[in-house]
Amino acid sequence: MDLLSNFLMDFVKQLQSPTLSFLIGGMLIAAFGSQLQIPESIVKIIVFMLLTKIGLTGGIAIRNSNLTEMILPAAFSALVGILIVFIARFTLAKLPKVRTVDALATGGLFGAVSGSTMAAALTLLEEQNINYEAWAGALYPFMDIPALVTAIVVANLYLNHKKRREAEYASKQEFFGEQQDNRVKIWPIVKESLQGPALSAMLLGLALGLFANPESVYKGFYDPAFRGLLSILMLVMGMEAWSRLGELRKVAHWYVVYSIVAPFVHGLIAFGLGMVAHYATGFSLGGVVVLAVIAASSSDISGPPTLRAGIPSANPSAYIGASTAIGTPIAIGFCIPFFLGLAQTLGAQ
Amino acid sequence: MDLLSNFLMDFVKQLQSPTLSFLIGGMLIAAFGSQLQIPESIVKIIVFMLLTKIGLTGGIAIRNSNLTEMILPAAFSALVGILIVFIARFTLAKLPKVRTVDALATGGLFGAVSGSTMAAALTLLEEQNINYEAWAGALYPFMDIPALVTAIVVANLYLNHKKRREAEYASKQEFFGEQQDNRVKIWPIVKESLQGPALSAMLLGLALGLFANPESVYKGFYDPAFRGLLSILMLVMGMEAWSRLGELRKVAHWYVVYSIVAPFVHGLIAFGLGMVAHYATGFSLGGVVVLAVIAASSSDISGPPTLRAGIPSANPSAYIGASTAIGTPIAIGFCIPFFLGLAQTLGAQ
Amino acid sequence: MDLLSNFLMDFVKQLQSPTLSFLIGGMLIAAFGSQLQIPESIVKIIVFMLLTKIGLTGGIAIRNSNLTEMILPAAFSALVGILIVFIARFTLAKLPKVRTVDALATGGLFGAVSGSTMAAALTLLEEQNINYEAWAGALYPFMDIPALVTAIVVANLYLNHKKRREAEYASKQEFFGEQQDNRVKIWPIVKESLQGPALSAMLLGLALGLFANPESVYKGFYDPAFRGLLSILMLVMGMEAWSRLGELRKVAHWYVVYSIVAPFVHGLIAFGLGMVAHYATGFSLGGVVVLAVIAASSSDISGPPTLRAGIPSANPSAYIGASTAIGTPIAIGFCIPFFLGLAQTLGAQ
Repeated sequence: MDLLSNFLMDFVKQLQSPTLSFLIGGMLIAAFGSQLQIPESIVKIIVFMLLTKIGLTGGIAIRNSNLTEMILPAAFSALVGILIVFIARFTLAKLPKVRTVDALATGGLFGAVSGSTMAAALTLLEEQNINYEAWAGALYPFMDIPALVTAIVVANLYLNHKKRREAEYASKQEFFGEQQDNRVKIWPIVKESLQGPALSAMLLGLALGLFANPESVYKGFYDPAFRGLLSILMLVMGMEAWSRLGELRKVAHWYVVYSIVAPFVHGLIAFGLGMVAHYATGFSLGGVVVLAVIAASSSDISGPPTLRAGIPSANPSAYIGASTAIGTPIAIGFCIPFFLGLAQTLGAQ
Repeated sequence: MDLLSNFLMDFVKQLQSPTLSFLIGGMLIAAFGSQLQIPESIVKIIVFMLLTKIGLTGGIAIRNSNLTEMILPAAFSALVGILIVFIARFTLAKLPKVRTVDALATGGLFGAVSGSTMAAALTLLEEQNINYEAWAGALYPFMDIPALVTAIVVANLYLNHKKRREAEYASKQEFFGEQQDNRVKIWPIVKESLQGPALSAMLLGLALGLFANPESVYKGFYDPAFRGLLSILMLVMGMEAWSRLGELRKVAHWYVVYSIVAPFVHGLIAFGLGMVAHYATGFSLGGVVVLAVIAASSSDISGPPTLRAGIPSANPSAYIGASTAIGTPIAIGFCIPFFLGLAQTLGAQ
Repeated sequence: MDLLSNFLMDFVKQLQSPTLSFLIGGMLIAAFGSQLQIPESIVKIIVFMLLTKIGLTGGIAIRNSNLTEMILPAAFSALVGILIVFIARFTLAKLPKVRTVDALATGGLFGAVSGSTMAAALTLLEEQNINYEAWAGALYPFMDIPALVTAIVVANLYLNHKKRREAEYASKQEFFGEQQDNRVKIWPIVKESLQGPALSAMLLGLALGLFANPESVYKGFYDPAFRGLLSILMLVMGMEAWSRLGELRKVAHWYVVYSIVAPFVHGLIAFGLGMVAHYATGFSLGGVVVLAVIAASSSDISGPPTLRAGIPSANPSAYIGASTAIGTPIAIGFCIPFFLGLAQTLGAQ
């Protein structure tokens, strides 16, 4: 009982943090019909600066630390990314009025990682003075890429299988004029993910942190601007979430249920695996929160174009609507405080 | 005599401040035909950041202070906003070649507030170490909205009245086919003002300052960036003022006279009312300057679209030209130093 | 031998500086096909802020110092700017498959100055704690404008001469119907250079530094943001250099040779003249490096539109390709470390 009231008080306090209050503020002014607009070019440069900064932090950390610690969390990240797609395949896809390809694309997006959500989590951890490995942000691609690759591969296998069955059914006596190439190529999907603006910026930062001496611009520019830029991005994401709600209404209501439940389920799985790493290799509880939050997050910026190219038959209103309008606000506004509270209950500091 | 020479020396010194010198610089390079352009998206984000910061300052101040002090200055702000429109109705509108609706729209714009001008005044007060209430920036909407609402309501009453008289004159024997709705709806005008990008940002900042804990991003981001961003905005406004001069030449020359005289008249009325609040409730002399400057200012960014929608028959070249090309440079370059000097003469510190 | 290994170690160390590593990073991610884009409006405001800052630095420095020191370096800057065009006229233009007007335009661009390259050099000098005159950045227009004017004047004289000879040859018996105006007007070219966005911003900063009191925004905004913004611009220039390589392939291969050799030759000439000023008037070795680097640099942003207007018959693929794809990376990545190392060998500190 005391635990619950503590948790609720912490939760309200976290909603008052700059990060979450700007998100809520964005939803409120969008609901009020404000004509405030943050120009697209500003959003792009903010995303660039946030992810470059996360990459730089990671790169500098990896340069100065023992990399073997990272192996288990990275493996778990990849595992969770793949698992999330299969969860969508065997839950969301089985629900009425939900097309299998749409469910797989949605699973891919919820398995992929949102740099903004991760940035919000890192900021809240710092505000609460909870330690985490500086390389934790570098777990991002280990979950992001496997999730997108799995979603696209499974969707294409499914579509090929369906097509072949239809073809067999329709024309058993006919001869296949041309042998179709049913193999889905994985490298192009990986490459496209890496070429996306968010991952490019992060990997650039990572490489510069590893091989160059970016400390002066890191300390004088990227690091101090981080929280302020994040507050603007949160505002944009709040406004965006509100404006996408309409799109979501067009598709099956099960997407709403999935978008609310999935972030918690994915986060809890990752939290559990993170605790395994905590006991096995001393992965910090703050790091466990980061792992849980990147699992709870869904990709808003980099994932959609990759999925649109990889699964062209999937309906973007379904997967982008589910992710942007509900998944992201739930992940930032509820999952981050929840996993933070959980880690604090377990003794994080 | 000594007072005058002191005033002139102060005036020159203030022209050398970053804020005013960038404004003058903008006019000079525009006059020289420079191809320098500050992109529109940058101007938008600067306005957002300045007004969010002013809102945050106000919100944090109101949270930590006795709100009753604000009642009298806020009431005077609203009074001045309404008065300015009626002054335009009974002076500018009576001049030859000036259409009544154009005069009312111009009065509305001069009654409305320029966030940039206010930001310049707050910065100059700080540079001169003159105290003012931290919530003074929050007086903005109390003058802005009444002025715009009054201008639109009076213009529509005038247009309806005129239309009815013309109809009566032209067809006394005819029967009115449809009963016209002559009532001007006030709430949509208020709502549209509040939805404008400048007021939205300020109210968002105000709400976050009041109900959240934005201190970390305020101190680390919005506050330190304020003066620098303002310098860029001043440059833009200087260039804009110069380029709008041409438009102003197309309309009656009385607009030029009005645009030079009105900022001083409006400012002096507000200064007088501010002094009443100073003696009655201890409103600071710095606060009196803020009140005078927001009265002297005219809206460049948020006001025009509201007026364009509210009084579609008014000529934008008249009211935007008068405000941007002359009203704003006069308010920033002459009225701010003038009211500052006046307050200093009265013992402000 | 020891000198060479020291030089190489310094060189690698400088490649790891934020400035150069972001340039290399930009080339690498462009080569990898990254979809990362820094929006055009962001690039514009960065260029504005960097050059305003360089101008402010120069203006504040000139206000506080003995201007006569600047005369010799400024005269040498102008001399080098003019010389570079004539070097191109008598080397590049004589090579096979190179059109004379293209060679002159290329010479003009390599004589003109790149604000970004200069910003990179100033930053590296500071990182290495090498002193230089604060007004050194103000040498920019003294080299930039003479180079562009000379290129355009010489190109037009050449074109007029060629046209007249052709006319004489084709119609010796005909009477010239209209006397052509063969005089090339110099003032419009100077004016157009001064109106360009980069020089406008620099001269604005210079004027504000000289006549106003911009210290507060300089210290609180323009100066601290400098290195960080430069890192983003270097990234953009790296990506741009890579993407322009294709254009360069279309024109004669001699442009590649010229673009690699010319920055060193121009820089060495300026370095030599700078050493004369060093012994004659005590011009610092850091200042000599700045002079050499602005000679080695070629204009990417302001020069091209001036040349396009001044020598419309020249092929932009040739001169812009040579400058952006090779000249600039060579100047930043090789010439800056080279001249820095040279000055350090000569005892710079």
